[in-house]
Amino acid sequence: MRSDVTHFKCEIANGIARIALDRPERKNPLTFESYAELRDWFRDLVYSDDVHAVVILPNGGNFSSGGDVHDIIGPLTKMNMKELLAFTRMTGDLVKAMLNCGKPIISAVDGICAGAGAIMAMASDLRVATPEAKVAFLFNKVGLAGCDMGACAILPRIIGQGRAAELLYLGRSMKAEEGHAWGFFNAVVPAGELDQAAMDMAGRIVAGPTFSNSMTKTMLAQEWSMGLDQAIEAEAQAQAICMQGNDFRRAYEAFVKKEKPVFEGD
Amino acid sequence: MRSDVTHFKCEIANGIARIALDRPERKNPLTFESYAELRDWFRDLVYSDDVHAVVILPNGGNFSSGGDVHDIIGPLTKMNMKELLAFTRMTGDLVKAMLNCGKPIISAVDGICAGAGAIMAMASDLRVATPEAKVAFLFNKVGLAGCDMGACAILPRIIGQGRAAELLYLGRSMKAEEGHAWGFFNAVVPAGELDQAAMDMAGRIVAGPTFSNSMTKTMLAQEWSMGLDQAIEAEAQAQAICMQGNDFRRAYEAFVKKEKPVFEGD
Amino acid sequence: MRSDVTHFKCEIANGIARIALDRPERKNPLTFESYAELRDWFRDLVYSDDVHAVVILPNGGNFSSGGDVHDIIGPLTKMNMKELLAFTRMTGDLVKAMLNCGKPIISAVDGICAGAGAIMAMASDLRVATPEAKVAFLFNKVGLAGCDMGACAILPRIIGQGRAAELLYLGRSMKAEEGHAWGFFNAVVPAGELDQAAMDMAGRIVAGPTFSNSMTKTMLAQEWSMGLDQAIEAEAQAQAICMQGNDFRRAYEAFVKKEKPVFEGD
Repeated sequence: MRSDVTHFKCEIANGIARIALDRPERKNPLTFESYAELRDWFRDLVYSDDVHAVVILPNGGNFSSGGDVHDIIGPLTKMNMKELLAFTRMTGDLVKAMLNCGKPIISAVDGICAGAGAIMAMASDLRVATPEAKVAFLFNKVGLAGCDMGACAILPRIIGQGRAAELLYLGRSMKAEEGHAWGFFNAVVPAGELDQAAMDMAGRIVAGPTFSNSMTKTMLAQEWSMGLDQAIEAEAQAQAICMQGNDFRRAYEAFVKKEKPVFEGD
Repeated sequence: MRSDVTHFKCEIANGIARIALDRPERKNPLTFESYAELRDWFRDLVYSDDVHAVVILPNGGNFSSGGDVHDIIGPLTKMNMKELLAFTRMTGDLVKAMLNCGKPIISAVDGICAGAGAIMAMASDLRVATPEAKVAFLFNKVGLAGCDMGACAILPRIIGQGRAAELLYLGRSMKAEEGHAWGFFNAVVPAGELDQAAMDMAGRIVAGPTFSNSMTKTMLAQEWSMGLDQAIEAEAQAQAICMQGNDFRRAYEAFVKKEKPVFEGD
Repeated sequence: MRSDVTHFKCEIANGIARIALDRPERKNPLTFESYAELRDWFRDLVYSDDVHAVVILPNGGNFSSGGDVHDIIGPLTKMNMKELLAFTRMTGDLVKAMLNCGKPIISAVDGICAGAGAIMAMASDLRVATPEAKVAFLFNKVGLAGCDMGACAILPRIIGQGRAAELLYLGRSMKAEEGHAWGFFNAVVPAGELDQAAMDMAGRIVAGPTFSNSMTKTMLAQEWSMGLDQAIEAEAQAQAICMQGNDFRRAYEAFVKKEKPVFEGD
């Protein structure tokens, strides 16, 4: 997996990619270029066999302020419909790429996490925060609707329909404490421990059976709108595939020897 | 939007409609007539441009006791299937009309909120309560099933599948404190502050971009059973529509001038 | 309903079936035989008119350790795909049978509740636990994916998408306290009160209108992936059926006489 990217930071080691937006002086807004490069990077991740988890980190005390007012919102106000739809499809494609990349994503949220930044946290699999994290789906503050990049579909399934409606209609910040109580954040830790907490989760995931983890990720998305009986049949097929994997045999053999299994991801 | 209704109370001012059932001496039960008039009123709301939020208020310390035992349940026990289905479709049509009216609805719940009253609260977008609020999906107490007016679909998405199952199988009251912890209520305030708390929320909503708010409401319902990729494409289209709205431009221009945007709803 | 089963314990009295796995010395693992017999027993339950609720109990301080390592996992590592799929379909069929049996199921969870044991608790309608309950969807610990017997579809709807993802990717135990706060458990009670708490719930359910309860169960599953308007029409039909039931009339007549209704389940 390439780490030579231009519009965000990326380091890869031990099966974990660490990425972050990189304009800390402006709280890490997204631009047309960083959207597109993130989309392409997550699309490539499908085919990678050296990255098995992604950690999205804050930078300079903030996660992301979302689409840049000057670089993005200004130009959008002058576009025709064809151009606008090309833009909203590009931002949606980033979320689709995150959901379909096959590798669990952990967002480590500190400070401002707004607009498209909040969406990137929402589209991750797991989320850790500091007490200072402020997550705002503030689209209606800029005259837009709450239905941005999948928010009306995904946010209600994470925190419940009523709480999601409140955040989307009022555009208010969700505090870290609320986010934890509501199931948006899996954990809240002091700022000095955020990076480590996210890396610990990532480390546990990459030490697991990574082919099976990837199947878990696929099925969490795949079963989103299936009927119950259909979802159960889909899982019967998906799990049968994993049962022919070597990691299943490795776990059994380790158990018989009373050892801890070492997974190899096949 | 007309406020000259017969079977419930209705006042309209500053873009907010305040409605309430109006038989406080019997805890505001619904009747065939109030069901039908509410359904028609919410259907008309789609085409209104002078109401941008609805607040449903209690009356005399209670929200609603649901379908009246004498006026509704008695006659129902004597109906044939064609007549019964006409009735259950009418009640379901009230919920459909609330979901599809395009304007956010805030229920202010005090005292008894039972049966079809609980459903009206559930079918709202946001809910505020007093500590005295008692919400009971008590259909099984009158020999019926929990699947009334959408409860088996909607309630689990608000409070979770296991809690919804408990309320629907046991018919027990949900206390205000539970409702808050579970995400049914967005806030719990003392009875003396309930009206103001609901009006504050409504005020913030109508001061926002009302055309975009309406799109948020549409998409929260529209994406209910879509696949993830389809929901994201649907939002790309819906948000592109909002980006051609004038409120988006107004927000940008206000931001550049470091002013607060004044939205006009187009 | 037959209680003469071989691979688990079963007692039936007063409309309530009490079942439990029965190898307490090994924390009640499932075997090929108990899976199949449970599946068949729950399938038969559809046609039973003497059982109106099921309580699944722990045995010897544990609920179930899931699929037996020696009796199940060992053989699975040697199977071909056709055999594996037959197995995963059989386990999925147990969940389908539980969801479609028409009778509310209450799991009483104590001690270890892991793997397929956790799935059986998840596939129940209601769950009570002791403080010692440890629920682990530990499939990735044995090299498999989290998508087992419907977990990626059902668990997110009970506890939220983010918490479900954490449990499925990390395989860690959910503590009783977490399970209660997250809506997995409806109640947590001391071990000495667990049986009674579950039986009290079951007793309240079987004293209710059992035909209508069965319709509630059907519709909770049936509406899983319906659109909102379709779910509301489906409920209009289902509730109209229940309104022609005698229990609805009995409730009305009892109310008029200021008596407590006695339901008979028709």
